[in-house]
Parts: sequence; structure tokens; C-alpha cells
Amino acid sequence: MTDTLETRLRAIEDRLAIADIIAGYGPAADALDEASLGADWAEDATYTAGEHRFEGRAAIAGITGYATHQGYVAQGCAHVLGPHRIEVDGDTATARGHSVVFLHDAPGWRAERVSANLWHFARTPEGWRITGRENRLLNGDAAAHALLARP
Amino acid sequence: MTDTLETRLRAIEDRLAIADIIAGYGPAADALDEASLGADWAEDATYTAGEHRFEGRAAIAGITGYATHQGYVAQGCAHVLGPHRIEVDGDTATARGHSVVFLHDAPGWRAERVSANLWHFARTPEGWRITGRENRLLNGDAAAHALLARP
Amino acid sequence: MTDTLETRLRAIEDRLAIADIIAGYGPAADALDEASLGADWAEDATYTAGEHRFEGRAAIAGITGYATHQGYVAQGCAHVLGPHRIEVDGDTATARGHSVVFLHDAPGWRAERVSANLWHFARTPEGWRITGRENRLLNGDAAAHALLARP
Repeated sequence: MTDTLETRLRAIEDRLAIADIIAGYGPAADALDEASLGADWAEDATYTAGEHRFEGRAAIAGITGYATHQGYVAQGCAHVLGPHRIEVDGDTATARGHSVVFLHDAPGWRAERVSANLWHFARTPEGWRITGRENRLLNGDAAAHALLARP
Repeated sequence: MTDTLETRLRAIEDRLAIADIIAGYGPAADALDEASLGADWAEDATYTAGEHRFEGRAAIAGITGYATHQGYVAQGCAHVLGPHRIEVDGDTATARGHSVVFLHDAPGWRAERVSANLWHFARTPEGWRITGRENRLLNGDAAAHALLARP
Repeated sequence: MTDTLETRLRAIEDRLAIADIIAGYGPAADALDEASLGADWAEDATYTAGEHRFEGRAAIAGITGYATHQGYVAQGCAHVLGPHRIEVDGDTATARGHSVVFLHDAPGWRAERVSANLWHFARTPEGWRITGRENRLLNGDAAAHALLARP
């Protein structure tokens, strides 16, 4: 019985740990918080955003140093990640959901990028880490829809 | 004591199961994933969106076949459901929150629909299912505000 | 062992209670639900939104009576709070994330305010309560970025 409670508790902790990681991405990106952004990715993680592909934690954390990204932050931007549908399967997990990048365009903000996301996670001795993220603009591209469909 | 832990654990699982269902709606709608969209609704569920009313799981899952919906998906859209306030009461539950439909309007996206939502859920032998969803545009309509106010 | 389960369970309940409070803010604000809005704040809570500063629960709940706020609601608005990164430390907690205020601008909605938020919470005998919220527009202002960076 205790084992069962333990198993159920762990399933909840896994799910919330993954939700925490996703919820931390936008604030870290907007704050140019490179250390915080990098901490949640596996050493050999990959991040594909349309035609751009970043390989390895250092490259991904280095997004905060890109001129385009820094230009967004200076102009005023918000990387808002919506609630994701998370599926944990033992020591790996996936999450599907939306991201919206709002860009300041006085007096308001415009939705500059609205994307589909499929994240992959792995349990490591140090906790859950992102092993991959695929991001595609929801501009009618069927490849974006494929990221959101459940297998 | 174990009973108490069991009860508390179940309360958390209930809440997360309901959050999962809401988080799965948008990805399924955007991916025209009819099977996935239908799976979360009770057989006799109803979905009211302004003047439109869908009765029964088959009719609701069939939204993916509507010309308007397919036009949105082809143009590029995102049905983003925000975090909802969930209240579980035994074997039924409600959730209140926002949904935003972004539509591609090159070079960016525009917020085409911003709505209030009140969801109703029931525990079934197969798990939690949506028994009803009411959606109203937040365009000043008092009926939309009524969906968001706590009873 | 049971103690450990109890501790872990409580950590999850704490986190979800805080997520519930954040998820309830927007619906209460949009519905002019003053009682519901006020219930989640500590008696001596503070809410700073740019140049505006509200001191005490009554003043914060009274936001629903402001002409500007009521004008937004009549025009059609949605206060959408994104998923937040929550950190609980004993009897206090913080949460970092985004808020977006959509305003009806027929035929669609525009993002009128896109902000960084840092919330502070305390455990009280009646449950978790907000003790402070700092909100700053993401318009390039470094003070907004500071709210989102992890300490």
C-alpha cells in the first residue's frame, strides 16, 4: 500500500517537475538569464525552431546572446508558454503545447510568433532535464500540426 | 493516516487529470486530431460557444470537420487555453478560465477570439470526462462575466 | 516513511494552492468579483503595477471599482495569467511569470498590457495568501526583467 502511494506520489512529482521546467523557460529567456535557461537542458539536448537548430546545452543557453534575441528583449518581449499536455512514461516524458512571443509595438504588443511545441524529457540523477524541443510556427504548416497530435 | 494520505493524493490526481484534459483541447483542435479531441468528453456532453451549441461527443469531435475550423487551421491558428481555476467536489468538478484563438495574419498573428470558459466534469469508471463547456466572447457581454465569477 | 510521504504530499499541495490563487486572479478581475479577488490576499498585502501601488487587501480588491478597470470590462477584456514558476520555501513562496491583458478592439482583441510578475506568498492559518505582487510592463524596462530572473 505504501509502495502504491509512493508510486502515485512520484508520478505527480514527475509531472510537476516537468511543468516547472516549461514554466521557467519564458522568464529565463526574457530576463537574458543564461544560467537559469541552461540549467534545465541535458548536456546533449537539441532545440529546433523552424530552420534554426541548436545542439547542446551551451548552444541553447547561448540563445540569450543572439543579436535578434537581445533586440527583442530591448524592444520589450514576453515568451509565454501555455499549459502543456504532459505524458510521463517511466524515465522519459513528452509535453505538447503552445508558445507565444509578444513583442512591444507601442502602444500595445503584437503576437510575433505563435508556435506548436513538442518537448522531450529524461530523468537524470540530477532530476528531469529537457533532451529536445521542437518548435514550429502555426502558420498552416502541417509539420507544426504533427507536433501537437497525440501519437 | 494512510486513508488520509490516500484521500489527499486522490484530490491532487483529480485536479491534475482535469488540468490535463483542458491542456489537451487546444493541441487536438489545432492538429485536427478528432479522436484525441473526442476522447475527453462524456457521451452526452454539451459545448456551447456563443450562439453555437454542440450536443454529444460525436458532434463535438466533429468540430474538426467544420469548414470554418479547417479554414483557421489551414491559415494557421492556435487554440490557447490558459491555466484554469479548478474546483473538485466529489465526483464532479468545474473549471473557470480563458481561451484565446490566435489566427495567422502575416507577418504576425492576431487574437481572433478571447473568451471566458466554464467547464463541467464528471468522474466516470474510465476517468474524468468533460460533461459541458460554456464559452463566451469577452466583448463586454455580462453573460461572459457570469461564467468567470465564483458561485 | 509515512512522514516522508506526508512532507512530499504537502509540498505538492502547497504548490497547487499557489497555482490556484494565480489562476483565480484573472477570472475575478474580469468578472468584477471583488469578494473573490480580495479573498486570496493577506490583510497587509501590497500590489505594485508600474507607477501604481495598492496597499492592503481592501485597496487591492477595490481595483474592481476603478473607472479604468470598469471601462476595460465594459469594452471586453481578459486578464490572462500564464503558468508561473513557483518556488516554495517553508512558509513563504514566490512565483514568476507573465500576464497579458487583452482588450476588445473589434473585430478582434489587442494585447494592451504584457507584463512580468513576481508574486510573494505566505502560509497562514487560513491557507496560502498573497503578500505581494510586483507587475511591470515588458517594454524593454530592465526592472521588468529583474522580476523574472531567478535569484
